[in-house]
Amino acid sequence: MSQGLAGRLTDDGHALDVRIYFEDTDFSGVVYHARYLNFLERGRSDFLRLKGIGHRELLAGRYGAPLIFAVRHMDIDFLRPARIDDVVTVTTRTALLGGARIILDQRIACGDAVLVKATVKVAVLSPEGKPMRLPKDMHAQLQPTASA
Amino acid sequence: MSQGLAGRLTDDGHALDVRIYFEDTDFSGVVYHARYLNFLERGRSDFLRLKGIGHRELLAGRYGAPLIFAVRHMDIDFLRPARIDDVVTVTTRTALLGGARIILDQRIACGDAVLVKATVKVAVLSPEGKPMRLPKDMHAQLQPTASA
Amino acid sequence: MSQGLAGRLTDDGHALDVRIYFEDTDFSGVVYHARYLNFLERGRSDFLRLKGIGHRELLAGRYGAPLIFAVRHMDIDFLRPARIDDVVTVTTRTALLGGARIILDQRIACGDAVLVKATVKVAVLSPEGKPMRLPKDMHAQLQPTASA
Amino acid sequence: MSQGLAGRLTDDGHALDVRIYFEDTDFSGVVYHARYLNFLERGRSDFLRLKGIGHRELLAGRYGAPLIFAVRHMDIDFLRPARIDDVVTVTTRTALLGGARIILDQRIACGDAVLVKATVKVAVLSPEGKPMRLPKDMHAQLQPTASA
Repeated sequence: MSQGLAGRLTDDGHALDVRIYFEDTDFSGVVYHARYLNFLERGRSDFLRLKGIGHRELLAGRYGAPLIFAVRHMDIDFLRPARIDDVVTVTTRTALLGGARIILDQRIACGDAVLVKATVKVAVLSPEGKPMRLPKDMHAQLQPTASA
Repeated sequence: MSQGLAGRLTDDGHALDVRIYFEDTDFSGVVYHARYLNFLERGRSDFLRLKGIGHRELLAGRYGAPLIFAVRHMDIDFLRPARIDDVVTVTTRTALLGGARIILDQRIACGDAVLVKATVKVAVLSPEGKPMRLPKDMHAQLQPTASA
Repeated sequence: MSQGLAGRLTDDGHALDVRIYFEDTDFSGVVYHARYLNFLERGRSDFLRLKGIGHRELLAGRYGAPLIFAVRHMDIDFLRPARIDDVVTVTTRTALLGGARIILDQRIACGDAVLVKATVKVAVLSPEGKPMRLPKDMHAQLQPTASA
Repeated sequence: MSQGLAGRLTDDGHALDVRIYFEDTDFSGVVYHARYLNFLERGRSDFLRLKGIGHRELLAGRYGAPLIFAVRHMDIDFLRPARIDDVVTVTTRTALLGGARIILDQRIACGDAVLVKATVKVAVLSPEGKPMRLPKDMHAQLQPTASA
């Protein structure tokens, strides 16, 4: 029954539905701003997952040297708040694919309303924090709009 | 596509699949112990949701006076750890249904392995924290093993 | 004994020491990126606190109409990771003070090493989310480098 | 200025002041129940810290074999809620010290009001999860009420 838990691949990337629970809200009555970064990370993780790339395998060296992805820079607009019981959709698409970094465009929407827009720069690192090159297989998998 | 996001009602309660993400783990390599309480709360919330009871409606007074549920006591065994990328299943069933409180039995399992067992006592409160009686409709909905 | 818990006012703003605990780390061995936003928020809250402005009082309308602060935009560089047991220092200073918004420069450092740099735009809102003007008293309190 | 950040040793254990921030609250207006477990863990970590025991050193094997502490069982009463801007005090004392496990009594109070009471059973494990014996030095350090 875990089918669909990782969201779905779309024409230009990935979409993931996320439920807002008690834990996500704060006393102002809406979602605590930092929680949106958790939702964005779930979107990125499940995008990679559906492309066949798991964090545990990455760190265990299944793609050559052990690798982790680390967020290096984020530019983020908090436009409208989500509320308890809402279901929001996190969309992720590759904007730019370099040798050692990836830039992703991500959004969180509730129905037609865009709640959050973010540009996220992710680096590929060794577990010790040294910049690494993105393995070729992965490079091919994460090409922006492969279909276009 | 949010179908199934709230889990499923079972013969004696509710089951919810939860993915383990980066945010859930700590530097020991496994899930941070307090995070299991978040998963348990998601299970309870979605059990109520599929019974037609939403937190926003509760607090807005759709069931008479405005109500919240508050955890009063928890007895919890942490038996085995979950790891990143795992999908665990949170099960929830009513153990005892009183006038102003509910006792729930909850488990978190990964495949056949039980990771966490918890007995959770929940009280029905006004937003100011005064004990309230469980509305009759809700009482009927949450009966243990109604089918037995 | 809670003396110092809210950090200290500095020549151009505020500084707060924050300990890194288990809850802040993830399985990559370092601090989970979204946690830095929590630390930044603690810095902003304690900056306001030492200026005499509490969140509960704000929302209760002690400054006229009930107000909340909401983060609208954040530009954030994650330069180096913090690790368990580290003590990091969050510094906050007003960069620009408008009628209904504040731009803050914030940093997180560990010793001489800057770990995180952020520019944070905060809006003043009613509890319903309507933009509000910053009360005059508060405006005076939050002036950038009042001493210069 | 990080003096006092780790709390203080007391006659029968340890006390740590913790500020309640936005991140700790939920939309019901008070602290989210699972957050108290984070505060309890901060208390335990700082108790160990002031006894000279750091998590990083533990895992790096400074006390013989690499060790981690894992929470195995918790019995917890949530008596009264804490609210934003509150300062609560987490107290920790050793109740029972076995060869491979420790039972701790912990409380969270706000002024004279006890908010949370917990009995926490912690096991000593290898990083792979194998039960280990508590090193002798540590055993001596953590004796209940050493002064009595």
